[in-house]
Amino acid sequence: MKKVSVIGAGSWGTALAFVLAENGHDCLIWGRRQEQTDEINEQHTNQAYLKNCKLPESLKASSNLEQVVEHADILIVAVPTKGMREIGSQLNDLIQQPKLIVHVSKGIEPDTLKRITEMLAEEIRPEARKGLVVLSGPSHAEEVVLRHPTTVTVASEDTRAAEEIQTLFMNSFFRVYTNEDVLGVELGGALKNVIALAAGITDGLDYGDNAKAALITRGLAEITRLGVKMGANPVTFAGLAGMGDLIVTANSVHSRNWKAGNMLGKGHSLKEVTEGMGMVIEGVRTTKAAHQLAKQYDVSMPLTEALYSVLFEGHEPKEAVDWLMNRGKKKETDDFSN
Amino acid sequence: MKKVSVIGAGSWGTALAFVLAENGHDCLIWGRRQEQTDEINEQHTNQAYLKNCKLPESLKASSNLEQVVEHADILIVAVPTKGMREIGSQLNDLIQQPKLIVHVSKGIEPDTLKRITEMLAEEIRPEARKGLVVLSGPSHAEEVVLRHPTTVTVASEDTRAAEEIQTLFMNSFFRVYTNEDVLGVELGGALKNVIALAAGITDGLDYGDNAKAALITRGLAEITRLGVKMGANPVTFAGLAGMGDLIVTANSVHSRNWKAGNMLGKGHSLKEVTEGMGMVIEGVRTTKAAHQLAKQYDVSMPLTEALYSVLFEGHEPKEAVDWLMNRGKKKETDDFSN
Repeated sequence: MKKVSVIGAGSWGTALAFVLAENGHDCLIWGRRQEQTDEINEQHTNQAYLKNCKLPESLKASSNLEQVVEHADILIVAVPTKGMREIGSQLNDLIQQPKLIVHVSKGIEPDTLKRITEMLAEEIRPEARKGLVVLSGPSHAEEVVLRHPTTVTVASEDTRAAEEIQTLFMNSFFRVYTNEDVLGVELGGALKNVIALAAGITDGLDYGDNAKAALITRGLAEITRLGVKMGANPVTFAGLAGMGDLIVTANSVHSRNWKAGNMLGKGHSLKEVTEGMGMVIEGVRTTKAAHQLAKQYDVSMPLTEALYSVLFEGHEPKEAVDWLMNRGKKKETDDFSN
Repeated sequence: MKKVSVIGAGSWGTALAFVLAENGHDCLIWGRRQEQTDEINEQHTNQAYLKNCKLPESLKASSNLEQVVEHADILIVAVPTKGMREIGSQLNDLIQQPKLIVHVSKGIEPDTLKRITEMLAEEIRPEARKGLVVLSGPSHAEEVVLRHPTTVTVASEDTRAAEEIQTLFMNSFFRVYTNEDVLGVELGGALKNVIALAAGITDGLDYGDNAKAALITRGLAEITRLGVKMGANPVTFAGLAGMGDLIVTANSVHSRNWKAGNMLGKGHSLKEVTEGMGMVIEGVRTTKAAHQLAKQYDVSMPLTEALYSVLFEGHEPKEAVDWLMNRGKKKETDDFSN
């Protein structure tokens, strides 16, 4: 039994806390609102984020971040990418004894183009960390709490830290693989939202399964090309945090990114889509970041380029697809080699 | 303008003939039944295989194989894998001048474990061939004749032959990539049916999107592992003939392999499923072949093994999934390296 704290009581943080409590660990979850943590402690539910899910009674919640940090040797950070630096800086102030820190979010910081472990490493002093781990993969929280089979990847530069987190989470419905390629896992998780957005567009245009499969395949190829140029392992992009997560996101009507793309494909403007959804569409932010990374690393990313032209330069989705289909003749296999 | 003949007037052969005629080539299609070729010549339809599709008037059909072979310098062979040797041997008898031969089918011959180009090379004497090309990728015929964007791969040991076929087919809705890895393209197309069958099973068990994404991802990893051991390029499996085709097949309720798996997942026996569907389920034959290949090349293929145990050894699908989830802890990236 380990003492673990989960920072963030959204659907994914709660589902991971569910797995940890089921595995017999002493798990405390932090939520910002007292009302929500009371509900977890008294009703053993978190209805706003996981409808009709009964949480283990051993799972405790608190809105006192200091207490939650104090409780555990292992911290699972499950907050939106936008709030990552703020929570990192708070953790830096609160941590007394070094902790093993795991994050489970996806995204790239606009402008700085930093990944999440890079942001956390900047915010939390080295003496406060026993290791930094990322957990990623195809995982709707709703299915995890139904104990449906789910697989994820954990990656760290510190192999033993990754293996410790693998052992912590692994059970009969939650299978965990380790991976040493932190860069690849974080890029895969973030950039797949660009492709999911584009997949939504082709679905919005009613272009069918052939077009969508092509887009997912060629999209993953260009993400891989970028990742390899940046130093990642191409195999990571063919894995759970790349292809696996992309398949779930691009085929799910529940994905915000797919939904936004679908509306764009049906002829709505980006302004209408973002106002209509009333929340951040991570794939839009990430398309900007991907566009900048492609320039910086001098990598050909035609799909990202086409999507960028639709989102930020007023091109019609149909125009962009036609352009993609009518480029010069290509070989399929020059993708990742040098 | 080229003279091209398509051997086989099923849905895929007809869709490819549609593309060739649209591209302005002088295209003749062979069908076994006079009634069907009359319908193509007089009504410009092939209702039994492509409902509500108007074929170009320039597309001609004939049930005289000798005449169809004589007509063209390029032959597109579009018959089921089961009939491949028979048609190959007929072509060998009929060909006077050497032809460029393209096949567009998927499968591995049971017992011999031969791929389709290998079968054709055995049946058709070298002097009758100007090259052997395989065309494969994510491509529902019904979407192609709606001119929805579709991408495929053509592979040949003879790069110029592949490029000639690329030029022949490529247009604004049909994009063709070349690939030198014939082995990888043929293995990808055949083995993806094993994974599609397994994906149908998890859907039949109502295991959800996480499980299916994991299965597709890990399934493609083990196919790649086998392919690499046999000498294929791993990038091919991440391409259109591997991942692309797999995504279309595993997510399509129209796929025979997915449908068969779905019924197995819902508790029907293999006998009930094959009798109920009344036609060959390619993935069942291919699972046997994959099982034999895994042994022969000493490659770990846990998913194929689990599926084989369900199809041929009477194991319950749920048992097989539980076994898959509860194996030892693994790294994700040892897959294709050495």
